[in-house]
Amino acid sequence: MNGINRPTLLVDRKKCVDNINFMVSKARSKGVTLRPHFKTHQNVEVGRWFREFGIDRITVSSVPMAQKFAQDGWNDITIAFPFVSSQAENINSLAKEIKLQLVVSSFNNAKNLANSLSEKIGFFLEVDSGQNRSGFNANDTKLIEQTIELISSKSNLRFCGFLTHAGQTYGHKPNEVIDIHTKAKELMVHLKNFFIEDYPDIIISYGDTPSSTAADDFSGINEIRPGNFVFYDMQQASNNICTTANIAAAMACPVVAIYPERNSATIWGGAVHLSKDFYFLPDGAKSFGAICKLNEDLSWSEPIEGLYIQSLSQEHGVIAATNPSALSKISEGEIIAVLPAHSCLAASCIGNSTTFST
Amino acid sequence: MNGINRPTLLVDRKKCVDNINFMVSKARSKGVTLRPHFKTHQNVEVGRWFREFGIDRITVSSVPMAQKFAQDGWNDITIAFPFVSSQAENINSLAKEIKLQLVVSSFNNAKNLANSLSEKIGFFLEVDSGQNRSGFNANDTKLIEQTIELISSKSNLRFCGFLTHAGQTYGHKPNEVIDIHTKAKELMVHLKNFFIEDYPDIIISYGDTPSSTAADDFSGINEIRPGNFVFYDMQQASNNICTTANIAAAMACPVVAIYPERNSATIWGGAVHLSKDFYFLPDGAKSFGAICKLNEDLSWSEPIEGLYIQSLSQEHGVIAATNPSALSKISEGEIIAVLPAHSCLAASCIGNSTTFST
Repeated sequence: MNGINRPTLLVDRKKCVDNINFMVSKARSKGVTLRPHFKTHQNVEVGRWFREFGIDRITVSSVPMAQKFAQDGWNDITIAFPFVSSQAENINSLAKEIKLQLVVSSFNNAKNLANSLSEKIGFFLEVDSGQNRSGFNANDTKLIEQTIELISSKSNLRFCGFLTHAGQTYGHKPNEVIDIHTKAKELMVHLKNFFIEDYPDIIISYGDTPSSTAADDFSGINEIRPGNFVFYDMQQASNNICTTANIAAAMACPVVAIYPERNSATIWGGAVHLSKDFYFLPDGAKSFGAICKLNEDLSWSEPIEGLYIQSLSQEHGVIAATNPSALSKISEGEIIAVLPAHSCLAASCIGNSTTFST
Repeated sequence: MNGINRPTLLVDRKKCVDNINFMVSKARSKGVTLRPHFKTHQNVEVGRWFREFGIDRITVSSVPMAQKFAQDGWNDITIAFPFVSSQAENINSLAKEIKLQLVVSSFNNAKNLANSLSEKIGFFLEVDSGQNRSGFNANDTKLIEQTIELISSKSNLRFCGFLTHAGQTYGHKPNEVIDIHTKAKELMVHLKNFFIEDYPDIIISYGDTPSSTAADDFSGINEIRPGNFVFYDMQQASNNICTTANIAAAMACPVVAIYPERNSATIWGGAVHLSKDFYFLPDGAKSFGAICKLNEDLSWSEPIEGLYIQSLSQEHGVIAATNPSALSKISEGEIIAVLPAHSCLAASCIGNSTTFST
């Protein structure tokens, strides 16, 4: 059947292009620049689909990822991850070829950056807008000022503005996302206003997938960097950020054994393919993926009611049936499509073995 | 420093060889065959270290993994995963080259196997000994008998015995592991005794890392297949199955930013390097890894008291300090060694980029 004989990441080109179109149109209508995050797909082919919409600047999360996309002709890249000093040599090389922006996330991180970069490079100060992952405390304007001055004293380094990832929007419904977004946006706009007199060209770079999808007010924001929206996934669908019909990536997995007496089935598709990320079903149970029928043309159905992935080990996935009759919809030997909990990690797990449908 | 500039899996050869030596010696003293599971390391070089101990038969969890190790000269391989019918062609090819054993996990799984394999291949019936992942119900001797007869009617397919993975031992302390082990072992031995008259050559293939490490009584068992012990990890150490000194694999990660005011630090080392698997600290908090100093020769210290990985996103790890002074033991720009929660997944995440120390 359809040439698939092992766990394989499938990308539905039409759904994916529709998602790109949605975000490009939204950014245009809100007057913000879309600098999509390519960490989700990490795929040169998918990257090219963005070009057809006039996208010419991108975000990545590591130096090796920047090198990969620079090789495919992307020449304006922001590495939205704190500066890694052990990568200084690679960064200097890359900055000779393309317009490069980096992120500075602490005072010592800034010192390491200022001491090791010789090429013309832009930098953003990362602000923690509530995720508590990395970045300056927005209220510590004194430390922020010292840091900007430290780096700006180097003539090759240009201060671009403030960057944040309000990743605490993940796992929330649209109305909650909008509340988080409003707070994070106000924090960032306040900070920009504080520094704009001294640095009139600074911008705010912002925008995770939930807020970029659900929010409407982007006043004061200059640029958004969502990534996940290119595929979406069950974490987003289960929170009503998207629908299951928007999900553009699925993992094709062979069904190997079915156990009607214990309402379960085993698939070849485990943590090394889907990652151990999960979402919550309406009854509060954890699910690692939704189960769909796979068509001959590699498109897939809507999720089968009553089936979900209850647990994963390295190569095994265990499907549980909340409705025993749902098990009869799949059979041993069949290849099914699993909508992943978190498409960014699933795509990264499976590496470059992506198959495109339609 | 030491040539590491990005997240990199480090393997301490001495610790790893000591772990291999421990399990080889234990298997010998108990009179069971050791058929180590290579899914943990998935590494040709580590595989060769086993050969030096006289190991000549191995376990893998997929057909591609079997192909990889067959290419490196392993010629007696059990694929301890339910038969995947879409891999039949690859299996037939492989069985022309090496002695191959497969696993049958349901009646329809057996039908698919019997209908699609033409080469001489051994098969085990997989029994569910309590993990509820895959395999026959041990009490359903009638279905088991029908299945054996179905497959044995094919002259090329040879019934080898019963196989189980008592993976429910994971996450338990030694005394609990021994209880689980005793029940699973009795179940298997009972089944073997039931069928031994008709099939006098059948064996029991058994043995996860916790029970193979902690248990003493293997009477009635013929073969054990532990895998994780080659590296061990924090899941095993936190349950006292091993000590942290036994852990033979670590992820080298750059420290990028430290935040004393929030008792945290950010590292380049995320879910794509370590996986989202975790273990529990004594106070019940989840940890995704323990933090060690990395030495110039790529060996590492014991874990630093008071630091652990509290959360992971795609490329970020967030270290939390339960003791604020512990943060002073690491600095921005330094490369640290993270002992992973689950070494099997961490090794699989990072693929082939393994660096060996000592």
